Amino acid sequence: MAENQYGRQSIVFKNSPEIFSAYSTVGSKEGKGPLKSWFDLILQEDKIGQKTWEEAEAKLLKDTIVGAVKKGKTDKHKIDVIFSGDLINQLMSSSYAIRELGIPFLGLYGACSTMSEAIMMSAAFVSAGYCEAAAAAASSHFCTAERQFRMPLAHGNQKPPSAQLTVTGAGCVLVRKPDIVLEQPSEEGERVYVSGGTIGKIVDMGIKDSNMMGAAMAPAAVDTLTAHFRESGKEPEFYDMILTGDLGAIGKSIVIDSMRKKGFDLSNNYEDCGCVIYESNSDAHSGGSGCGCSAAVFCGYVYNKMRIGELKNVLLVSTGALLSTISTQQGESIPGIAHAVAFTTERKMV
Amino acid sequence: MAENQYGRQSIVFKNSPEIFSAYSTVGSKEGKGPLKSWFDLILQEDKIGQKTWEEAEAKLLKDTIVGAVKKGKTDKHKIDVIFSGDLINQLMSSSYAIRELGIPFLGLYGACSTMSEAIMMSAAFVSAGYCEAAAAAASSHFCTAERQFRMPLAHGNQKPPSAQLTVTGAGCVLVRKPDIVLEQPSEEGERVYVSGGTIGKIVDMGIKDSNMMGAAMAPAAVDTLTAHFRESGKEPEFYDMILTGDLGAIGKSIVIDSMRKKGFDLSNNYEDCGCVIYESNSDAHSGGSGCGCSAAVFCGYVYNKMRIGELKNVLLVSTGALLSTISTQQGESIPGIAHAVAFTTERKMV
Repeated sequence: MAENQYGRQSIVFKNSPEIFSAYSTVGSKEGKGPLKSWFDLILQEDKIGQKTWEEAEAKLLKDTIVGAVKKGKTDKHKIDVIFSGDLINQLMSSSYAIRELGIPFLGLYGACSTMSEAIMMSAAFVSAGYCEAAAAAASSHFCTAERQFRMPLAHGNQKPPSAQLTVTGAGCVLVRKPDIVLEQPSEEGERVYVSGGTIGKIVDMGIKDSNMMGAAMAPAAVDTLTAHFRESGKEPEFYDMILTGDLGAIGKSIVIDSMRKKGFDLSNNYEDCGCVIYESNSDAHSGGSGCGCSAAVFCGYVYNKMRIGELKNVLLVSTGALLSTISTQQGESIPGIAHAVAFTTERKMV
Repeated sequence: MAENQYGRQSIVFKNSPEIFSAYSTVGSKEGKGPLKSWFDLILQEDKIGQKTWEEAEAKLLKDTIVGAVKKGKTDKHKIDVIFSGDLINQLMSSSYAIRELGIPFLGLYGACSTMSEAIMMSAAFVSAGYCEAAAAAASSHFCTAERQFRMPLAHGNQKPPSAQLTVTGAGCVLVRKPDIVLEQPSEEGERVYVSGGTIGKIVDMGIKDSNMMGAAMAPAAVDTLTAHFRESGKEPEFYDMILTGDLGAIGKSIVIDSMRKKGFDLSNNYEDCGCVIYESNSDAHSGGSGCGCSAAVFCGYVYNKMRIGELKNVLLVSTGALLSTISTQQGESIPGIAHAVAFTTERKMV
């Protein structure tokens, strides 16, 4: 095994790259949900004054990145690289958002697993000394996703109860090496470090119904969680919170059942971002989905819970359904993937 | 600056991650071009017996990865992570190719800059000790790209002379830490190391014509080349060959002119993958394009030229046009990006 690896899929960041800023933006519907007090910005109007939904998503993402930079009391010229992705064909949202910022850009695509992939990459680059500071970002927008993956909004199509609602939202974190001078807990609260991650494999159990994405992604989450516990030697209880990305109610129940069969009890500390972002009576069917779901929930809710000391160790497992309209039209099943990133407020000196 | 950085955009791999295998596959048309003797596999028939062109591209990519694994005398279970991408919406080719291989997967999207992004990531992960061995791969296919980005093949549309032809092809490299035991040149030839890279910024000069992609991408290539020379302190003459990804004849001439104005003479050692992959009378208009263009040219031609000692230092600058059909339909201009990766056969001990 390599020196910063603790298993084939799992890497460790020995020098504790620190998330020194996190910013979240959500749409108007998400801003009425149970987590509304945790988000940095709630849109009053989801088109944000733009001509098209795609421009709106690009602006949502750009404003979120700029928000993270301001909140981190830094400057965009001090961010050496941004890892970002979204759901829109050819990463249209990320490309048009970052075009205006002049930050060196490495594009990622992991469907809704993009935020954990991006955080892992940014921590990996900071920890290895490839940059001083890195950003990780992801976005999704209900209206761009509906148009691209499903039906024109004006159709007003009905959906089955297993369907999920693409979150209008974005998140951005900034990562740097921990500051020795600021080693002590600051008045702003606990510091949040990225301690490691587990890279997912593609898992495809043959589900072909794009209204059953939670069920399509759940086996990938189970595979990555199992690999993470096996390789890290940690038990689920080590974490104050384990969060999957956007499995929704059906996918979440599959994860709990499947993990129990493998000997892991997740009943006490496991939640799914897609299950907590909307009110239960909000017509969101099985729950939220989209890159922006785990991105906004992590950057808004989880990060701030860690900052105020209510959570010490968190595992974020963003989950992605690697389908496209072409693959669906061609009758292909839906490959799933999940990447895990571990966060801690307890920095280990090495 | 961080310890493995020599400028905001540029990183250095001090322990010389080694490319221990490279495999290239091209389609039948590319297999008639001037580089035909350098490719590992030339398809007789570009659908490779599959039902759809998309399945054909996935098979092309999978067979190329498997080819690299076999050629490297290793096993797919010994590859800890694969960085891969393609042009098809939601990385359909990579997802379906890698689904069957069981290799932990981090998806990338950089349009046609994907191969240099993937090689940089795999070298970064190996060099930092996050894995023992990593793979980097990318593919494109004329028939999937035409269908997705342009017109149905059956239309037989004409194109202007500035248009480029998407290469049917794929490349895969395997990267590991250099083997101390095998330090001396082996009977197989020189060893090829990844010495560093320069991460590109998005550059958009306002071109909106998707039949002018070389011109749209050229300013990004100029920006990255300039950053690379400025930050690394190297002159163009340091390299035996500087290769852009797929600018074609028009983009290549813009790069030469623009770099001359900035004081860099590229007239002696600069080539473009898109200009060398087809015969000049092959109806390829301005030249080849697609992720597979620089991937196959690097893995076939360049890597093997380095192995036989004809090239010592090479800079690969794959170039991407970050457009989508949606952005084109909405009248947006085409953002370009280029990432540079430096290769050497002269390992520096550190």
